[in-house]
Amino acid sequence: MATAVKVYGPPMSTAVSRVLACLLEKDVQFQLINVSMAKGEHKKPDFLKLQPFGQVPAFQDECITLFESRAICRYISEKYPNQGNKGLYGTNPLEKASIDQWLEAEGQSFSPPSSVLVFQLAFAPRMKIKQDEGLIKMNEEKLKKVLDVYEKRLGESRYLSGDEFSLADLSHLPNAQYLMNTDRGELFTSRENVGRWWGEISGRESWKKVVEMQKSPPPPSA
Amino acid sequence: MATAVKVYGPPMSTAVSRVLACLLEKDVQFQLINVSMAKGEHKKPDFLKLQPFGQVPAFQDECITLFESRAICRYISEKYPNQGNKGLYGTNPLEKASIDQWLEAEGQSFSPPSSVLVFQLAFAPRMKIKQDEGLIKMNEEKLKKVLDVYEKRLGESRYLSGDEFSLADLSHLPNAQYLMNTDRGELFTSRENVGRWWGEISGRESWKKVVEMQKSPPPPSA
Repeated sequence: MATAVKVYGPPMSTAVSRVLACLLEKDVQFQLINVSMAKGEHKKPDFLKLQPFGQVPAFQDECITLFESRAICRYISEKYPNQGNKGLYGTNPLEKASIDQWLEAEGQSFSPPSSVLVFQLAFAPRMKIKQDEGLIKMNEEKLKKVLDVYEKRLGESRYLSGDEFSLADLSHLPNAQYLMNTDRGELFTSRENVGRWWGEISGRESWKKVVEMQKSPPPPSA
Repeated sequence: MATAVKVYGPPMSTAVSRVLACLLEKDVQFQLINVSMAKGEHKKPDFLKLQPFGQVPAFQDECITLFESRAICRYISEKYPNQGNKGLYGTNPLEKASIDQWLEAEGQSFSPPSSVLVFQLAFAPRMKIKQDEGLIKMNEEKLKKVLDVYEKRLGESRYLSGDEFSLADLSHLPNAQYLMNTDRGELFTSRENVGRWWGEISGRESWKKVVEMQKSPPPPSA
């Protein structure tokens, strides 16, 4: 039996949960090692050896240490092509190119405004940090424009990159989930195709398990 | 002879020049079709069919239309593995994973602050837009922290992903070039390893050709 891969970081982190969703889709065994960000463990020298920017997650397989959640997802999908969801990163070069395109759209267009909104609307209140209304408004406008493009696209195809659920859709789950839990869920549900898509991707067993993990107490630190 | 691929957009655009550098490294014939952003051609219906976000570049090969410069670079590298720079996207899964990791670091950590600085320091003066000093200062601080991580990494390996020049290095060229042409070049040259790296990557024939193209009059629009 293959050794379980290791994921360092709390499931509450959007980037960590992106990697967990990918591992569950691919049916890859993993060990989750907590990194307490409240205690600043992500900035300590031992962790910086795994992740030089002091961010989560870090990832270890038998022969490689990686950071950057979307790069880790690509690696997992290519390392384990024949298990779990075999089409997660496409089954031919054209499918893969389309997935890469929408995965980049997530990273470059969807993630910047949605990450600001997740911090301002979901994390700031828990951390007793004052919300910046101007920043919220500006990023909500940016996100609406992105979702208008998605609305059109999702009227033409079931998922972003084509007819099958892929890494491109998966990569949106963490930020979208946090926003759905705030009073801004309408950003998604008020758009017919985006709302239908959100229902489909968030209903996957892999993602439901990640949401459960986010509610559970953290595993022990390294 | 294969038909030339098509790239839509002006070489002055950082994202367009990223794709041009990749095509030149891979020795892939291309046709450059101008999109006049001053005339708003990137927001017209015909162009939005190619690039739904109304950004440049768009890209066409015989059987696919793509957007997102980093996804286009991945596609070109995988479609033409045996020509030009054969190692540009790695020659085995571990090299590829390391390249993806640093390509994501560029997209997620280097690009956000450097893009703000490029706009504020290089484009705003040409467009007679008032510079935002607070924004410049904040993003300069963010970029310094990223370059401190790069400085350490480039003390351990010649290029970001390992011993060979790759897509990860290439992807930094457009923003870094604009910053080197402002009074902020010291951000790179004051760091010994980053300065050495910049000298190596910017001295490549592929990139020197792109810089020449940026100085030439634009090709005709579609």
